[in-house]
Amino acid sequence: MRKRVPTSSRRRASALMLALCTLLLLAAPSGAQTDPLPSWNDGPAKKAIVDFVQSTTDKASPKFVAPEARIATFDQDGTLWVEQPMYTQVLYCLDQVPAVVAKKPELKNVEPFKTVLSGNREAIVKLPTKDLEVILMATLSGMSVEEFRAEAEKWLAAAKHRRWDRPYTELTYQPMQEVLQYLRANGYRTYIVTGGGQDFVRVYSEKVYGIAPEQVVGTAGGTKYGYDKSGRPFLTKEPRLLLNDNNAGKPEGIHLMIGRRPYAAFGNSTGDRQMLEYTGAGDGARLMMLVLHDDATREYAYGPATGLPTSKVGTFTQALYDEAQRKGWTVISVKKDWKRIFGFEP
Amino acid sequence: MRKRVPTSSRRRASALMLALCTLLLLAAPSGAQTDPLPSWNDGPAKKAIVDFVQSTTDKASPKFVAPEARIATFDQDGTLWVEQPMYTQVLYCLDQVPAVVAKKPELKNVEPFKTVLSGNREAIVKLPTKDLEVILMATLSGMSVEEFRAEAEKWLAAAKHRRWDRPYTELTYQPMQEVLQYLRANGYRTYIVTGGGQDFVRVYSEKVYGIAPEQVVGTAGGTKYGYDKSGRPFLTKEPRLLLNDNNAGKPEGIHLMIGRRPYAAFGNSTGDRQMLEYTGAGDGARLMMLVLHDDATREYAYGPATGLPTSKVGTFTQALYDEAQRKGWTVISVKKDWKRIFGFEP
Repeated sequence: MRKRVPTSSRRRASALMLALCTLLLLAAPSGAQTDPLPSWNDGPAKKAIVDFVQSTTDKASPKFVAPEARIATFDQDGTLWVEQPMYTQVLYCLDQVPAVVAKKPELKNVEPFKTVLSGNREAIVKLPTKDLEVILMATLSGMSVEEFRAEAEKWLAAAKHRRWDRPYTELTYQPMQEVLQYLRANGYRTYIVTGGGQDFVRVYSEKVYGIAPEQVVGTAGGTKYGYDKSGRPFLTKEPRLLLNDNNAGKPEGIHLMIGRRPYAAFGNSTGDRQMLEYTGAGDGARLMMLVLHDDATREYAYGPATGLPTSKVGTFTQALYDEAQRKGWTVISVKKDWKRIFGFEP
Repeated sequence: MRKRVPTSSRRRASALMLALCTLLLLAAPSGAQTDPLPSWNDGPAKKAIVDFVQSTTDKASPKFVAPEARIATFDQDGTLWVEQPMYTQVLYCLDQVPAVVAKKPELKNVEPFKTVLSGNREAIVKLPTKDLEVILMATLSGMSVEEFRAEAEKWLAAAKHRRWDRPYTELTYQPMQEVLQYLRANGYRTYIVTGGGQDFVRVYSEKVYGIAPEQVVGTAGGTKYGYDKSGRPFLTKEPRLLLNDNNAGKPEGIHLMIGRRPYAAFGNSTGDRQMLEYTGAGDGARLMMLVLHDDATREYAYGPATGLPTSKVGTFTQALYDEAQRKGWTVISVKKDWKRIFGFEP
């Protein structure tokens, strides 16, 4: 047994030590005041972020936010990483079609499977949304959650974006990675709130963004509990939509999964409008930001807001732009506000 | 501007300080080895908890669990607080019936509303589950999430349990509060996974258990995003079930809301069976525990496991008891394992 020091002298020793450490730390020269957002150019967007963080974490500020209430939500596609020319998850699903058809040969000559199997990229890109939804349901259900995870991990490790010839997981926006880190360093819990599949994003969110699976809210299907032959329980992904985490589904998903209103919300398209409205409707300081992709040279340019080319993927309408202006949301210009786009750039 | 100390000398000073603090802390007399579970009697249940925590947090142990994976899930009614003679939330809903009928007078002579309005406790207690579900749907939907929260808070502040003449929020089990604290002190994130309403439990979970709203998984209805006359957005609670967080719904809800398999799971009734099975099916060390209420003197005695009186509320069948024995789950005897039941007891 451990020899025990009498409590009172132990307490005195501990108190002395604490006082010494405190003194030493107070006497320390202040650390270099490094810029938390080095990939941002100075301007209204960067200032809005820094002002928000400083005022909501300063106890003397009327805008102070209690640590437990510090929630920030981020759309993923087009906000945290590249979504052009097509959402990464849709590419994953298209690549799974041959495997699905191999299991169910009757789908071979049925649309939209037939078009996807043809490999005709032009025709595939033109598939209407409801056809893509059929592909998504067919390729994202019917397997155990572990099988799905393994399949998605394998694909993500191998697949590359044609333009940059790099894995999709490297195509995250460095300026937004800095915002995530800066908010977390100031006590904010960062959530992804994505129209993409919750299970898909959870496969890589921790490694890519430092965001834990339980902090990913996304479009979610139901699962079904069952047992294998040996009696071991497992969950099967079902083709049954529980939450369409787009548009009004974003605040609904936030209520379901987090149960608190965010203090900051970041998006880039009409699908994020309601999330920003809901965030902005709260009391006190709130930060609402929208990324506008206006840099065809370094990344992509699409809107149609401000006269940019229109796009089916990540549509940023003029109406959304006008609402942002009216409500004091900050529009981030990729061209003007971001010094650097990707972490792999010099 | 702040005067800047040259980087190299700042670095040397910081390193020195860190070394000094480390030395001082290492030299500190070890803190009193206080019992983390003082309300537990020594026995196999207490030992199972302590062994689990020690082995999964010891880096040298083959059972070590990485901090990010440390998830523990707790049923609420009957596991963390008293559920007899009736679930607290059902009592809340019954108390809301007059207000619902005042708004919709056509329900006055319709069952089960008529029986509830009669005030005949004997008849109310006998209402079949499907009638209770009608009451729950009617009283838990149709209002904004903020209105619901305010109503539930008001009720919880005033309502009392007849037997102890205390608010329901004081009727939490002190030994389980200690388990929550002990696990959290060892890096576990504690979740409630309840058959009760997610929104209802979130009203008090932080105050009562130190469990944040985003760590409450429960039976959940949908919400609908809309705008009031001034254009301010709000969410309305809808009579549409998204997740029935009982039985197989518990692992399904855990996957939906947390996305990781728990390492420890605590329950007390057949509704928790699948959650414990799912937890136990993971690799490495897992802790599965069931509270058996076998102490009519200090609390309640119900099963029907081990010959205890049967109960519609919190049923613990002999089959569940046998499965626990077979699978090495630990059954907690309230009578033998708990030194003290409530925090307000001496």
